[in-house]
Amino acid sequence: MTRSLVLLPGDGIGPEVVAAAEVVLQAVCRKFSHQVETRSFTIGGAALRAKQSVYPDETRAACTAGEPVLLGAVGDPAFDHLPREQKIETGLLALRFSMGVYANLRPARAWEGLEDATPFKPQRTAGTDLIIVRELLGGLYFGEPRGIASDGQSAYNTMKYSVGEVQRVARVAFLLARSRSKRLLSVDKANVLETSQLWRRTVNAMAAEYPDVALEHQYVDAFAMNLALNPTRYDVVLTENLFGDILSDEAGAVSGSLGLLPSASLGDGGALYEPVHGSAPTLAGRDVANPAGAIGSLALVFRHSWKGEDEARAIESALARTIREGHRTADLVAPGQKATSCSQFARLVAERI
Amino acid sequence: MTRSLVLLPGDGIGPEVVAAAEVVLQAVCRKFSHQVETRSFTIGGAALRAKQSVYPDETRAACTAGEPVLLGAVGDPAFDHLPREQKIETGLLALRFSMGVYANLRPARAWEGLEDATPFKPQRTAGTDLIIVRELLGGLYFGEPRGIASDGQSAYNTMKYSVGEVQRVARVAFLLARSRSKRLLSVDKANVLETSQLWRRTVNAMAAEYPDVALEHQYVDAFAMNLALNPTRYDVVLTENLFGDILSDEAGAVSGSLGLLPSASLGDGGALYEPVHGSAPTLAGRDVANPAGAIGSLALVFRHSWKGEDEARAIESALARTIREGHRTADLVAPGQKATSCSQFARLVAERI
Ligand SMILES: CC(C)[C@H](C(=O)O)[C@@H](O)C(=O)O
Ligand SMILES: CC(C)[C@H](C(=O)O)[C@@H](O)C(=O)O
Repeated sequence: MTRSLVLLPGDGIGPEVVAAAEVVLQAVCRKFSHQVETRSFTIGGAALRAKQSVYPDETRAACTAGEPVLLGAVGDPAFDHLPREQKIETGLLALRFSMGVYANLRPARAWEGLEDATPFKPQRTAGTDLIIVRELLGGLYFGEPRGIASDGQSAYNTMKYSVGEVQRVARVAFLLARSRSKRLLSVDKANVLETSQLWRRTVNAMAAEYPDVALEHQYVDAFAMNLALNPTRYDVVLTENLFGDILSDEAGAVSGSLGLLPSASLGDGGALYEPVHGSAPTLAGRDVANPAGAIGSLALVFRHSWKGEDEARAIESALARTIREGHRTADLVAPGQKATSCSQFARLVAERI
Repeated sequence: MTRSLVLLPGDGIGPEVVAAAEVVLQAVCRKFSHQVETRSFTIGGAALRAKQSVYPDETRAACTAGEPVLLGAVGDPAFDHLPREQKIETGLLALRFSMGVYANLRPARAWEGLEDATPFKPQRTAGTDLIIVRELLGGLYFGEPRGIASDGQSAYNTMKYSVGEVQRVARVAFLLARSRSKRLLSVDKANVLETSQLWRRTVNAMAAEYPDVALEHQYVDAFAMNLALNPTRYDVVLTENLFGDILSDEAGAVSGSLGLLPSASLGDGGALYEPVHGSAPTLAGRDVANPAGAIGSLALVFRHSWKGEDEARAIESALARTIREGHRTADLVAPGQKATSCSQFARLVAERI
């Protein structure tokens, strides 16, 4: 069976971690006798440097055709001065929006072999394996009206949610919970925000459709503490866009490095996969990036776009084994210690597929 | 010299932790030959039960007269069904708003003697001693328009900041940084939100007035991870209302229990002091609450309202010694183990003043 994957290497370390994921992809294809055809497109600073827009039409056409998309990273300090409409972050948000990917899955786990690299006591985090389901197309990120007053003396943003927007992402979370521990935690700030009251009411009303899933709620502040105190207690955590942005990074601290975190953004059509890390311009071109987030994202491509649970597990096991055996990229070694390069790490994972 | 303190015991464990703080206050008065006159007023569920409003006029008059206010906690599940305008949380927000306390200081520290009670490795957190300066009267908490659409199908909140609102809280943070490590970190989401762009621009423009303070910025998601990875790196952290709500609870995980966290909310007139914990209704009336947050808040009364740095340090040292000597309330012992009661803990701290 031939599958297609759209690659968006992007900026900074993006091209290197995407290349690493491709090395692992080839190994999976060999092992499982798959054919995967990849096509690369430009985005972000790389597109701007090529005198294109931050999200070129050709890239948009490829990303909205229904095939899964693997993004490296976008972000280039050379363009930081641009007004918001042309900002690289705006390009990333436009990509997500055009693809209609409203459910951003951000897994966070504790890794055997990295106990010394995290700030947490191993006995408090061992076994942590949770997924934050972050609403990705609503809330403060996209709400109108927004802006800075013309006198420059005040600014405003709008947090907005409709029942339909909450339902579609909650459905993904309920189904994910059903396929895992059958526990779902919804996180909001319903004691203060009307958007959160609508959120909670909508999620509660859906619970009857999923009688096998135990639903709970926590306020975002309380959860920010509980997540650090007892990460092993949580499994599937549903929350709105900005809360999910913050909480998924916090959850990532349990892993020990931003470089380890994968993500999948799902919608009714396409799906976008990206490591959680950014473009890390200072590391670019030096073969020192951690490709684990990108490789983990490739596993999620198989799981969520290609019904390839076996392939996903093969990648995740190979990654876990590589880490358990002590291979570490620069983000995970003490300063001065010898690190495995990005490309070498990818080869090690590929060999273990 | 005679000083006055307004007490708002409030709901749940509020009255017990305020009583505990009073025991310590008496010891401080004896030791430093002070006279402090206290007057108690009702608020929250306690006020509703007495057929008053959630923030009675008499209480409002006392709280807005310029004297410091020590609040226990508000929150009573019996009134959870009330519409927002009458909600107990709304009473708390009205209290803060009426007092004009725009700068909420939330210290978080690692405690010697509680190393086993936190999820963090002691060597990664020892020495942590940071203060989150949370803007308390703006942002999504108070922004208009807000509401649920009349058809119940959507809801909205408004995040709003003016330059003046940012300046007044930033000033508190710059001055605090000047009195401590001379480092200030401002946390925002300027890559997405216009309110954050205004925030960052305003804080940057003020930096020239504080040339002795090194100013840095981080995005809220990145900081949520960095705070967990390296809490010792931070000193004074300035941020907007909701970000501060979330991040201060996360920072509290370094301490090991919500019960340990004090806070001070400062404005141009009055000042409000409250432990960060809530009313914990299930613990109420059982003398099992942790009064350390309330006692720590009393120290902040001396430091910020009464220019009593020596008294503040005496309280904080007595608290630290009590904890270091192994006395622990129920929130900090393993289930089944013997705990020190709330009132006994207060006496132990008082004896060490
Ligand atoms: C770069 C930024 C716009 C983005 C976000 O906030 O969504 C990033 O932080 C992320 O989490 O993918
Ligand atoms: C109870 C709630 C309104 C309050 C807040 O969000 O400010 C609380 O979480 C706090 O942090 O003091």
